[in-house]
Amino acid sequence: MHAVTIDDGALVWAERPDPRPGPGQVLVAVRAAGVNGADLLQRRGFYPAPPGSPPDIPGLELAGEVVAVGPGAERFAPGDRVMTIVGGGGQAELAVVDETVAMPVPAGMGWAEAGGFSEVFCTAHDALVTQAGLQAGERVLVTGAAGGVGTAGVQLAAAMGAEVVASVRRPELHGALSELGAATVVEPDGVAGAGPYDVVLELVGAASLPAALGALADGARVVVIGVGGGARVELDLLALMGRRARIGGSTLRARSTEDKAAVTAAVVQDVVPLLAEGRIRVPVAATFPMAEATAAYERFAAGGKVGKIVLTNG
Amino acid sequence: MHAVTIDDGALVWAERPDPRPGPGQVLVAVRAAGVNGADLLQRRGFYPAPPGSPPDIPGLELAGEVVAVGPGAERFAPGDRVMTIVGGGGQAELAVVDETVAMPVPAGMGWAEAGGFSEVFCTAHDALVTQAGLQAGERVLVTGAAGGVGTAGVQLAAAMGAEVVASVRRPELHGALSELGAATVVEPDGVAGAGPYDVVLELVGAASLPAALGALADGARVVVIGVGGGARVELDLLALMGRRARIGGSTLRARSTEDKAAVTAAVVQDVVPLLAEGRIRVPVAATFPMAEATAAYERFAAGGKVGKIVLTNG
Repeated sequence: MHAVTIDDGALVWAERPDPRPGPGQVLVAVRAAGVNGADLLQRRGFYPAPPGSPPDIPGLELAGEVVAVGPGAERFAPGDRVMTIVGGGGQAELAVVDETVAMPVPAGMGWAEAGGFSEVFCTAHDALVTQAGLQAGERVLVTGAAGGVGTAGVQLAAAMGAEVVASVRRPELHGALSELGAATVVEPDGVAGAGPYDVVLELVGAASLPAALGALADGARVVVIGVGGGARVELDLLALMGRRARIGGSTLRARSTEDKAAVTAAVVQDVVPLLAEGRIRVPVAATFPMAEATAAYERFAAGGKVGKIVLTNG
Repeated sequence: MHAVTIDDGALVWAERPDPRPGPGQVLVAVRAAGVNGADLLQRRGFYPAPPGSPPDIPGLELAGEVVAVGPGAERFAPGDRVMTIVGGGGQAELAVVDETVAMPVPAGMGWAEAGGFSEVFCTAHDALVTQAGLQAGERVLVTGAAGGVGTAGVQLAAAMGAEVVASVRRPELHGALSELGAATVVEPDGVAGAGPYDVVLELVGAASLPAALGALADGARVVVIGVGGGARVELDLLALMGRRARIGGSTLRARSTEDKAAVTAAVVQDVVPLLAEGRIRVPVAATFPMAEATAAYERFAAGGKVGKIVLTNG
């Protein structure tokens, strides 16, 4: 097969041995694989793949057709359309996937959307529902809302009946966020005035977090998922105590297969039906052939997009 | 009645009108009232009493006999022994108490112990169980463990089957913490090496927290209850994400009566039986007559004690 490979900081479309599915795994012919911030970090050497994943093939999510099943794998058969998170190796022609983590692609969903669904919606659901315990009627702030996890978080929170405030730096993207369900769209300097927030999905990091921390409601829950805007913040413990608030961080990639299976099972239950009903969608800003990963990563890094950059095969 | 009153930073044993129980309240002849760090802050003007509490009479917990009941109050009758948290006003001869928040004093428990029980055990239980979700078998760090909340937290966590690491500055107090159930007692510079911690009960604040944050287990929960050692810390969001950890803060005082009733109901269910069985106790470091509150506060501030300083009447 061919795969996107990281070679001393460059992305090279290179030939690699076909992977083989182990026990409980399926082999997938990848049709689409989303690009995520973690891929850009990994390219720069900052975010190595966890054990069991290809060390030099990026890609945390993919969609495609099952072409073979490993020993004991019985949830899917060749020809089934699946979408899934992976610890790495998604940006290739073939990938092995733990069957307990894979999700069926709803009928009518295109490959690009399916390829860009899993990482961002699993991340957003885990953060908003499992970590933060979001309830209908609560006020949610999503910072950096125009990106992949941001557009997922805005849609998911709105579908759950929360009142969503989306923070987006570029004014020209505000309309798109309103269409995705944000009740209010602000630039970063408007965050402080649009609270108080019961839940904060922080996708930017240190450059953004202090404004949100100054506008928390009593009992607020903050989940930090992205630190592209810096990772170090000064925290006022007395303010945290006064609000009985909490701040947590999370990542999906390094968790056990069992943990990931629990996350995707919750997404299959809560989110996939919303996709099938058309109540949420995967906004795809651009697609690139997988052999042109360098251009795709550049487009991702340039910002100013709404939703996902997705690599496609064939 | 007489009460401890705050007069321009001084504590004065002064005459005040007898309080009268309102709807759902009982009037208590106070036999003992614990001293807490919040009282010292309030004396210095930093921690005003919440609405509905006497503005200039300190005291967040008390025990005594019910002497009258207000309209509609039916859980207690005159003569009943009760112990309770209050928003303020506990350090007096008489206090009005919301009956939903008051707890019965177990038979055989002395007044000093009962007067020093409520604030610290409600705080420790709320932090460890409700906020942090402590489970048997987990490793818990309690910093500043020799104080009131610390000795409560160590005993409660040990009784729940957790493995307790207690951090105490003075070596001469280590033996007492072992007797209360700590499996390991360290000085603050030993905190980093005694992890990793599933749960941290942080009672010191900024001077102590960084060492704990550097020794968190995956999925760790940190609850900050005290900031005597400073309130501002630098937080590494990437470390928090990597551990899927969270940091929360909490106080009891400013919460609604309904919230406080829920906290004390949980304590009546989980903690009071342990008291009655002798599996936990309230360590009382010293008692002072209530008219000598100034000396009691000085003893509290001097440190080097294990457990509570309690004011008594009669």
